Amino acid sequence: MENKNAIKNESITSRSEDFAQWYTDICKKAELMDYSSIKGFIIYRPYGYAIWEQIQEYLNKRFKKTGHENVYLPSVIPESLFNKEKEHVEGFAPETLICTIGGQTKLEDRLIVRPTSEILFCEHYQKIISSYRDLPKLYNQWCSVVRWEKTTRPFLRGAEFLWQEGHTMHETEEEARTETLNMLEIYDDLGRDVLAIPFVKGRKTDKEKFAGAMETYSIEALMPDGKALQSGTSHYFGDGFAKAFGIQFQGRDGKLHAPHQTSWGVSTRLIGAVIMVHGDDNGLILPPYVAPTQVVVIPVAANKPGVIPAAREIYSSIEQAGLRVKIDESDRSPGWKFSEYEMKGIPLRVEVGPRDLANGVVTIAKRNDGTKEQVKIEDVSKRLLELIPIIHKEMYDHAYEYLLKHTSEVHNMEELNDRLNKGGYAKMMWCGDQACEDKIKELTNATARCMPFNQTPFDDVCPICGKKAKKVVLFAKAY
Amino acid sequence: MENKNAIKNESITSRSEDFAQWYTDICKKAELMDYSSIKGFIIYRPYGYAIWEQIQEYLNKRFKKTGHENVYLPSVIPESLFNKEKEHVEGFAPETLICTIGGQTKLEDRLIVRPTSEILFCEHYQKIISSYRDLPKLYNQWCSVVRWEKTTRPFLRGAEFLWQEGHTMHETEEEARTETLNMLEIYDDLGRDVLAIPFVKGRKTDKEKFAGAMETYSIEALMPDGKALQSGTSHYFGDGFAKAFGIQFQGRDGKLHAPHQTSWGVSTRLIGAVIMVHGDDNGLILPPYVAPTQVVVIPVAANKPGVIPAAREIYSSIEQAGLRVKIDESDRSPGWKFSEYEMKGIPLRVEVGPRDLANGVVTIAKRNDGTKEQVKIEDVSKRLLELIPIIHKEMYDHAYEYLLKHTSEVHNMEELNDRLNKGGYAKMMWCGDQACEDKIKELTNATARCMPFNQTPFDDVCPICGKKAKKVVLFAKAY
Repeated sequence: MENKNAIKNESITSRSEDFAQWYTDICKKAELMDYSSIKGFIIYRPYGYAIWEQIQEYLNKRFKKTGHENVYLPSVIPESLFNKEKEHVEGFAPETLICTIGGQTKLEDRLIVRPTSEILFCEHYQKIISSYRDLPKLYNQWCSVVRWEKTTRPFLRGAEFLWQEGHTMHETEEEARTETLNMLEIYDDLGRDVLAIPFVKGRKTDKEKFAGAMETYSIEALMPDGKALQSGTSHYFGDGFAKAFGIQFQGRDGKLHAPHQTSWGVSTRLIGAVIMVHGDDNGLILPPYVAPTQVVVIPVAANKPGVIPAAREIYSSIEQAGLRVKIDESDRSPGWKFSEYEMKGIPLRVEVGPRDLANGVVTIAKRNDGTKEQVKIEDVSKRLLELIPIIHKEMYDHAYEYLLKHTSEVHNMEELNDRLNKGGYAKMMWCGDQACEDKIKELTNATARCMPFNQTPFDDVCPICGKKAKKVVLFAKAY
Repeated sequence: MENKNAIKNESITSRSEDFAQWYTDICKKAELMDYSSIKGFIIYRPYGYAIWEQIQEYLNKRFKKTGHENVYLPSVIPESLFNKEKEHVEGFAPETLICTIGGQTKLEDRLIVRPTSEILFCEHYQKIISSYRDLPKLYNQWCSVVRWEKTTRPFLRGAEFLWQEGHTMHETEEEARTETLNMLEIYDDLGRDVLAIPFVKGRKTDKEKFAGAMETYSIEALMPDGKALQSGTSHYFGDGFAKAFGIQFQGRDGKLHAPHQTSWGVSTRLIGAVIMVHGDDNGLILPPYVAPTQVVVIPVAANKPGVIPAAREIYSSIEQAGLRVKIDESDRSPGWKFSEYEMKGIPLRVEVGPRDLANGVVTIAKRNDGTKEQVKIEDVSKRLLELIPIIHKEMYDHAYEYLLKHTSEVHNMEELNDRLNKGGYAKMMWCGDQACEDKIKELTNATARCMPFNQTPFDDVCPICGKKAKKVVLFAKAY
């Protein structure tokens, strides 16, 4: 017989021992995902998928409020179409999954399982845009994409992952550029207001930008192992794709013009960021606004008279207060339940036991710092509602403090090496030449994460080549 | 220059002239979908996708309330795994899309783009089910599936379509059978409460059931051309798949058992049902609970002072009342707007013009029957809220009346032929032999849609073979 009180998280590797293994343990043991028999194609289990649904709900509201509409385009791209935009093809062709047989017949034009959908959107836009009256087109798609990666890790890099991809077309360059930055802002808000992750926003260098884009912007998160995680991107394309696909509109001046394009996306990689930024050796710690379950009610000494009814009443009042709450009335021991829900990162635990009940109180425990407090039964929901934003702020501040501590200005190769060895962002003045980026990569394995929006210079020369410095860049090792 | 006041629906084919062409015209002109360059892979445009989102929202609430959880499994199935369940493979193999190249390398185990996911769920369940404590597993997945069909029609039959697929595992046969029927009931509610479509519920004959299922139940809708449309299915599998995939759990008796399985799904085909059941020669007519926009406010003589501000105020009050409302302030003519939104099937139109305003009223027009009424400005939202359920009921009743008129009991081949020629359901007593089903198919091209839940017999013999009748069956030509 199984041991129903076995403590589940006893086998989570500690972060200091092996951070990568700790991460994988959490993914599996918190039941966020499972492996399928196809390498890199994971199963998004209910708990992991529910986190994604919270992210979807927030973004869908923000997207719709800013005039975006959801659509669904084919999951495959004809190879002949795919080959139309040279730079883009070069970026994606090596990692495509290709269908060659349909209905037991060899396909004349092979079909590529979409790695991203710029090309399909362009084909569609070519048909539906003909006048400035048709602009802007502000479309978004929720779907999965496939990129045949050699090295895969749950949520962080998958052969298949879930994402949203926005694809927009605009009358003017200015409007498209504004869109590109506005969407990055929404991603930044998602981090600050929902995921409790302080992102660094900035522009990618030419070396690091998206295949075919004129400019790429990103949000970058810093992980506790000192590595950066690109967590979302927003691209400005100019009219390059539009011209390649023959998209034209009659402008207000009566003449034909090519529209200006953007695309932007975040993926289930964000789940990986949440796991790493907030988790500890006992498991996951979910920020309350993204937690599928915000509060768990656990009856203690449940066989004592009055405990279960009291726990149920408290559960109902919390549910009525609008919090996402669960009650565990199973016959597992309270100790098992405590560690199980700690491992699953549920932000708040309400312990309902006979001794507390006799005093008219229950105990509330916070997952993020382990503190406990006793609260009068009638005040439970009120107190929980107060604690949600407090926990969110504590978690955000904790991550922000880590970010500040692990970001430093470097003025020479030694300081650069030192920072990168310790982990974190090396903030460096850069000449703008790709040769210097390449050299840093070669010497340290770090890449330019972004040129942050704050471009206040702090030095005159590029420490790599000694030439005049033009840009502030953040270098880091990255996922 | 384009003619900004051209009436868009002037080119919709009438239903009596060519029903199939009318359907295609609506799909395209109401901007529900567009074709892509891959046959059978359509583009779900914002308006069509928004209808799907309404359906998703309703079903997600119902599914979650009944304890179901959303998950996401891989979009491809290894061929070796696919071949494990013989009947299932035979049903789907002819119409699969197969990937043979990944990362520029030939795949050893080819990957089939999922046509349905029973097999992937079984593989996963095999890993996560080991005790009766792990049951039931009530999972649902929202995704797209691919079936390489030769003849395709927007929403009705596609090479790729969107759906939800529920896959559940249960401790007992009874529980699984109950689940199968409960989910069918939720689909029926969706028809009655949201789509305004009266479905007929029943069990499929062995000839028509799902590949690998023990029993298949369906909801069937009757289209205005007299053909039935299978609109959703729910399957009971017994433990056949479970045994093929080695899924076992330790029961309450300490022994090993195979769990009992169900699956159930509805797809974007429902959008096709809504279009056909309710539409008319002026375009789409959307039932109010599924309409992405329930009310459109149109300023008439918008250049007259006070019209636009009044229209905006009315718009805001309607929005605050919780209705999905749009205002069209564009410079198109009111005539263009009226026919545009009629064509798009928006249930309610509010006309705000200077003459009405002078009398303190506006005009409300109902799309479903074209009636108009004047309402005091301060009562607009209240009246609209009253009209929503009224319209829904009128539309449901209209469809139900059609269904009743086109269903008749048939006692012989002549009556059967007559009913099928006129369109609709021939309700027939059947001996239970597939030979008689085959003969009807051969002679009339009709199929057994279902054995309805109401099995009150009305005759003693099967009119095809003259043998003793066992079952009431509905025969119809079908999509």
